[in-house]
Amino acid sequence: MAYEFKMTRCVEFPDTDMAGIMHFTNFFRFMEAAEHAFHRSLGFSVNWEKADKSLGVGWPRVKAECEYKRPLRFEDEVEIHLLVREVGAKTMTYLFIFRKHEDGKPVEVARGSLTVVCVTKDKAAGGMKAVVIPAAIRAKIQVAPAELLPKGN
Amino acid sequence: MAYEFKMTRCVEFPDTDMAGIMHFTNFFRFMEAAEHAFHRSLGFSVNWEKADKSLGVGWPRVKAECEYKRPLRFEDEVEIHLLVREVGAKTMTYLFIFRKHEDGKPVEVARGSLTVVCVTKDKAAGGMKAVVIPAAIRAKIQVAPAELLPKGN
Amino acid sequence: MAYEFKMTRCVEFPDTDMAGIMHFTNFFRFMEAAEHAFHRSLGFSVNWEKADKSLGVGWPRVKAECEYKRPLRFEDEVEIHLLVREVGAKTMTYLFIFRKHEDGKPVEVARGSLTVVCVTKDKAAGGMKAVVIPAAIRAKIQVAPAELLPKGN
Amino acid sequence: MAYEFKMTRCVEFPDTDMAGIMHFTNFFRFMEAAEHAFHRSLGFSVNWEKADKSLGVGWPRVKAECEYKRPLRFEDEVEIHLLVREVGAKTMTYLFIFRKHEDGKPVEVARGSLTVVCVTKDKAAGGMKAVVIPAAIRAKIQVAPAELLPKGN
Repeated sequence: MAYEFKMTRCVEFPDTDMAGIMHFTNFFRFMEAAEHAFHRSLGFSVNWEKADKSLGVGWPRVKAECEYKRPLRFEDEVEIHLLVREVGAKTMTYLFIFRKHEDGKPVEVARGSLTVVCVTKDKAAGGMKAVVIPAAIRAKIQVAPAELLPKGN
Repeated sequence: MAYEFKMTRCVEFPDTDMAGIMHFTNFFRFMEAAEHAFHRSLGFSVNWEKADKSLGVGWPRVKAECEYKRPLRFEDEVEIHLLVREVGAKTMTYLFIFRKHEDGKPVEVARGSLTVVCVTKDKAAGGMKAVVIPAAIRAKIQVAPAELLPKGN
Repeated sequence: MAYEFKMTRCVEFPDTDMAGIMHFTNFFRFMEAAEHAFHRSLGFSVNWEKADKSLGVGWPRVKAECEYKRPLRFEDEVEIHLLVREVGAKTMTYLFIFRKHEDGKPVEVARGSLTVVCVTKDKAAGGMKAVVIPAAIRAKIQVAPAELLPKGN
Repeated sequence: MAYEFKMTRCVEFPDTDMAGIMHFTNFFRFMEAAEHAFHRSLGFSVNWEKADKSLGVGWPRVKAECEYKRPLRFEDEVEIHLLVREVGAKTMTYLFIFRKHEDGKPVEVARGSLTVVCVTKDKAAGGMKAVVIPAAIRAKIQVAPAELLPKGN
């Protein structure tokens, strides 16, 4: 049973904008990259085309949010800390805390969340239909302990 | 005094992902495009390098969020409706409602918001410093009437 | 019979990078946007899922190139001039000339090309297979007159 | 003296498009990522703001090209092999060969190149000015042996 995942990522040149900092949309790309790596770490893929790895389900987003505290710059190494905040019958919510090291200490630079829904392909329903999270996936994921989850956000 | 702005945008090929729908991060790009067009419509630029148009201020994001209701697909025409939800001394919050037309009727596909802070360049403060919104900008922007602003979100 | 297409596009904030100019990859996005708008102008879509508009074919790239002469900056208006350079049995090559206006005069800022191949879906062939350009499309597109096509590139 | 660099990269979800394959523009992002990692491997940064690491120079592109042979898909691991093809007084050209492993064998999926020019900031010259490559950088980079460089491209 897993409830968290950490990965480190380097800010690349096209992640930046003319203000000299990482464009705010890329924090969402980084969240998603951590989410997908989390699934891979459990032996799954979010690619519903790969039925053996995905169990035929995909995970579109129903809500995304991010609070920005400090800018990231080119070549900054940022740690993305994924925590499972909620698991419902058909949905999950991940919390993401972004930290970089300044003078050897981790400093929070941003905090975000993604709420995703478990779906299968369904042409009749306009492309996809929400379904209960497959038991094999549900069996490997649990909500993080309360003391790890910040209150409020 | 302006409190809203509308623009229409076409979903382009690289806006889509392998699920066949617009990647969720691009809704944030569309919000920002509408915000910047709103400023241009008032005679301003968000580019703080153009001092005459920006009054020397920039507008980094402190919070971004989006709720997704229906997918957008390649070549969909989507209306982005910006509404000014809050104006503080140094910050503003915009609400964005995304609509496409189905069978001639507008259908809401997503709803988001951006909270931005007014800053000037300040090397001592690590690159930028929050400042009071310049009077000339403040004079042209007002909060949308309550009946236009959805409750809750 | 069409051999050219022009569109104007505004450089947006996330198109820029920390050097303060449009990131070089976005010129390729702009080329593709002009290519797709060219097809729409002829009544077609490059989306092979829309069989009535695409005649069931798609157009993956086999070659892309760009020469950069001057940078583009945020809010620059750039004209993208598409010219059909070659039409083969299964492939087409487009030339793109990017111009912006300085002091009222058009100035070339970049020049690129895309060579695309006409394909249909084919699971056996690993996803797609090159096919002869459908006659209905071929009938509407011709190579631009030699005097419009720069020599060399 | 270095003349090559290799890195491996995983195709991420937003790198793909509705055709189910990596969007062609991302090959250029991958080339640039390898170029920047190559500079870091030599102790340099391409960020001209970091004067100690960049020697005050930046490297805008003057030409970019790519030939596509096979598509890349979500979660494909691709090797990017950078080779220094030419070094002039003020410019350098890199060749990039993209390979993925199929049935244990490396298969070339694309091949590209970037020609970059060494510049310093120069407000009078419209932002930047071409300069001779600093000797400290030049001393660490050499052209790859002819047998490693494909003819033609």
